[in-house]
Parts: sequence; C-alpha cells; structure tokens
Amino acid sequence: MSQEDSISFSRVTIVGPGLLGGSIGMALREKGITGEIWAYLRDEKKRQTCTNLSWCDRAVLNLQEAVQESELVVLCTPVETILDHLPMLSGWVKTGCLITDIGSLKKEICECAHRWFKDRPSSFVGSHPMTGSEKNGIEFASSDILKDKNCIVTPMYETDTDSCQIISRMWQALGMKVTKINPELHDEIVAWVSHLPHIIASGLINAINNKNEKWIKFCGNGLKDTTRVASGNPEMWKQIIMGNKDNVTAGINHMVEELNLIKKALEFNDREQLMEILDSAKVVRDKLDDNG
Amino acid sequence: MSQEDSISFSRVTIVGPGLLGGSIGMALREKGITGEIWAYLRDEKKRQTCTNLSWCDRAVLNLQEAVQESELVVLCTPVETILDHLPMLSGWVKTGCLITDIGSLKKEICECAHRWFKDRPSSFVGSHPMTGSEKNGIEFASSDILKDKNCIVTPMYETDTDSCQIISRMWQALGMKVTKINPELHDEIVAWVSHLPHIIASGLINAINNKNEKWIKFCGNGLKDTTRVASGNPEMWKQIIMGNKDNVTAGINHMVEELNLIKKALEFNDREQLMEILDSAKVVRDKLDDNG
Repeated sequence: MSQEDSISFSRVTIVGPGLLGGSIGMALREKGITGEIWAYLRDEKKRQTCTNLSWCDRAVLNLQEAVQESELVVLCTPVETILDHLPMLSGWVKTGCLITDIGSLKKEICECAHRWFKDRPSSFVGSHPMTGSEKNGIEFASSDILKDKNCIVTPMYETDTDSCQIISRMWQALGMKVTKINPELHDEIVAWVSHLPHIIASGLINAINNKNEKWIKFCGNGLKDTTRVASGNPEMWKQIIMGNKDNVTAGINHMVEELNLIKKALEFNDREQLMEILDSAKVVRDKLDDNG
Repeated sequence: MSQEDSISFSRVTIVGPGLLGGSIGMALREKGITGEIWAYLRDEKKRQTCTNLSWCDRAVLNLQEAVQESELVVLCTPVETILDHLPMLSGWVKTGCLITDIGSLKKEICECAHRWFKDRPSSFVGSHPMTGSEKNGIEFASSDILKDKNCIVTPMYETDTDSCQIISRMWQALGMKVTKINPELHDEIVAWVSHLPHIIASGLINAINNKNEKWIKFCGNGLKDTTRVASGNPEMWKQIIMGNKDNVTAGINHMVEELNLIKKALEFNDREQLMEILDSAKVVRDKLDDNG
C-alpha cells in the first residue's frame, strides 16, 4: 500500500465527489498516487457527469461495489451522510483498507468511526482539508484549491499510528500543509476560525436586509468580501453549525463581547480605545495574507 | 466649465491623492475630461512621487497655490482633514469653482461646507465614491477601481442643482453608478453597508486572537475574506466610525440581535430556524455578485 518514501494505492474510491472530492480525485491523478480512481454517486445524472471526467475510471451507484476493492476510501459527503455510511463501510471494505473523510466536524465522526472500525482489519483516520469555496459542485473542482492550504488530520488516542502517517503523507503529496490535532480540539478551533465567520457573515447580511432591503445595493467590495461565505450551501452549514453548537455558542458570546467593547468606546467617545481595537485587528489580519 | 453633453474642466486639483485620489486623477486623464491636473500633497517625498505620475501635471506643497486657479477641486484626504480644509478653500477658490470630496461621512462635511460656501461664488457638492481596497497609497491607484462601482452624491436642500448635475455627470463619465441621497440618509446607509462590516471584521479577528493566538494560522479562505477589510487604515476608520457613532451603534445592536437569534436556534436545537437564517442570508448574498 505504501513504500518508504512514496504513497501509492492500487485503487482509491471517492464517495460523493463534489467540489472538494472532485478536486481530490484530480490531484490524486495528477500526482500519480493511485492506480484506479472510482467514484460513488447517488444519482444517475451525476454518475454520468463523473464518468466523463478524466480522473475518474469508474463511477457507480452502488456503495458496496464502489468501496469493496479499494485501498483508500475518501468520504466527501456532508457530515450526516458520513455518519450514516460508516457502519456499512466498516463491513464492506477489504483488509488493510484506509478510510478517511473531509468532514468539517471531527469529534462525532471520529468517535462513530472508532466504534465501527475498532475490531476491523481496516482503519479510519479523520481529515479536514480546509479549503473550498462558496461554490458547490464537481464542475468547480480543481486540484489547485488544495495547494498550500491547511489540512488537519485528527487521530484519536486509539488510532493506528501507521495509518495516520499514510493519510498525512497523502495530503502532503497533494500539496497541503498537514497538522495533527485531536478531534475535540479540532472542533473547538474550527468553531472559531470557520463556523463563527460563517455565522457572522450570515448575520450581517440578514441585519442589513432586515433594516432596509433596498440598502444592500449600495454594497462595495468590503461588504461583498465580508459576507462571501454566506453564499455557501445552507444545508451543509446547518449540519456543521448544529453539530458544533457548544463551541459555536461560546464563539458567538465572545464575538458579542468584542462588539460591546467597540460600542462602549463609541459611547464614551474613547478614540484611543477604538484605535487600539482597530489597530490590533489590523496587525493580526495582515499576518493572514502571509499564511498561504 | 461644462457643455450640454460633455463635462470638461480647464484645471482640476486633487487634494491629497492616495489610492482613491490617484485613481480619480488617472481616470480624469484617460477620459480627457480635464486640461491640467494639479495635486496638493503635504510632504516633499510624496510630492516628488506624484510629479512623476503621467496623469499629474503639477504637484505642489502649497494648498492655496494648488487650488486657486482650478475649476474643480476634489478633496481626497481623511474626513477630519477635509473639515479642516473647507474654511480655507472657501476663501481661496475662484468664482465658479466646484468643490467635491470623497469622504465616507457626508452629514458633517456637507453641513460644514454649507456654512463656508453659502455666500461664495463657488459651490460644494459632497460625493462618496464607494470603492477602494484594504491597500493604501497612490502606488495602488488604478482607474479600474472606479468602474461600475457606486458613487453617492449628497446634495443638501440648499445645494445648487446645476453644480450637483455637473458633479454627478463627472462621476458617471469616470464609469461610476451615481445615486443622489441626502447627507443624513447617506450616513445611515453606509453605517450598515460599510462601517458595520469593518467593525465586525475587526471584532472577529480580535475575538479569535484573544481566544488563542495560535489558532489564527488555521484560517482558510473564508476567514480571510470575512476579515479582509480589517487590514484597512486604522486611523482613517477610527475617524469614520467615531464620526458616525449613533448610526454605527444602532447597527451593532441589530447585529447582536441577529447573533442572538442564531444562539437561540442552537440552544433549542431548532434546525428549521437555523436553516431559515442561513437560507435567507444566502438568497440576499447571492444577489450582491450580480451588483457590479
């Protein structure tokens, strides 16, 4: 399955290729990491689209058929579907198969996978490639969206170390910056750096629109950028936010405190305090552009 | 100064050309709207930089010299400096001169201008070209940043109608979408569509950084976009936000209400309510991309 310095799989299956799964398929092909690439899709129309893509050797509608001879299975469906698939997969995949996923929440997925895979001759290692777009669908896929982006791999205490190494090296081979973090801490971090921005973007758009729906047309680039993520798939984000609600709630509370600090500076005409808030935000924000 | 269908000025002065003033100078030259273009700058180094730019015929350090023979003066300094310059300009400009500005706040500027220009043979009309970037400085100037962007022109009841028409046609000639709105309503609108996004971006960056300064490195494109405006010039934004504090405070209060709605949906596990919030935000946000 893997040699000393290179990663290769005789067959990889992408379960539910959309924007990200399609991009992973393309990147696996470009890097020559796999022999065949199969895809599992739910409906015939999507299956046919996928069959015509150059990275995809075979696209099937039967999940068992799609995964049973693969050495690597990458689960790319929404979080709740990943949870639904894990029990079946644990019974279907062959000895030595590695299973990973791209779900934005890791605690529930990794705990569920642990329950189903712990006595099996196959291994699950959770992954979260932190990339994407407000656009959805395989037609926007591109191996470029993985390049230089963060990927958090989330081993549990019980996760097989070798399997974790192979999955990490696979993401690195696709161009990603890999960090290993346990699933619980992962969920806390992404509540702040990913889920909170989404909530704030959605809240801001609704605040303006509820105030006066004619005003939104006066948006400039600032408002467009600040709210871009609010165009993401609501069903997917509902699952993510609901599945991480304690961490997200803590993030919202902290955000409200920050807004109240600014309100207080305005109320007391405290120009120095306002300057300090804006200045410290600028210093931190400027660093993000050097960050891939 | 202007003919039936075209706008032209024998000399235009840009006071304090930075990103936006430089872009206006370039656009005026490209569109052939003016004979000479002069610039006023505060320091010798910036003056020399400006002298070397193709759109600039003369750059001077003396404000009176810069404006006294011009037919159009465009004030491109921060808001507080615009307020400082208005009294002097009202005494220096020649008969028939038009003065406009690019300040992000209009009520205070237009009221101040009205006091100083009401008995003069020259006219002030406030403008707010809604474009720019988190980048500052004349080196990032480009006439493209004006194209298809909103420009709000803010006549008061007392503003000369012909002057307002000429200023509006000038912005249109530079490629902007012009809307006329009174200064008070302008300030309320921009509190929501421009100042509130800035505050939220700064607050979000600070919230994450205060929670754990190591987490910011896990940012993806979503966090980058949501907080891009927080890299703007803190001194400029301090003036803008402080100068519009009542409207901004109302915006913050409304934003906190929106965040509390989301918290409540999480607390009660109300998936339908969360979906409705995310979905309505998406519908509105999607429209912004069709909006220039």
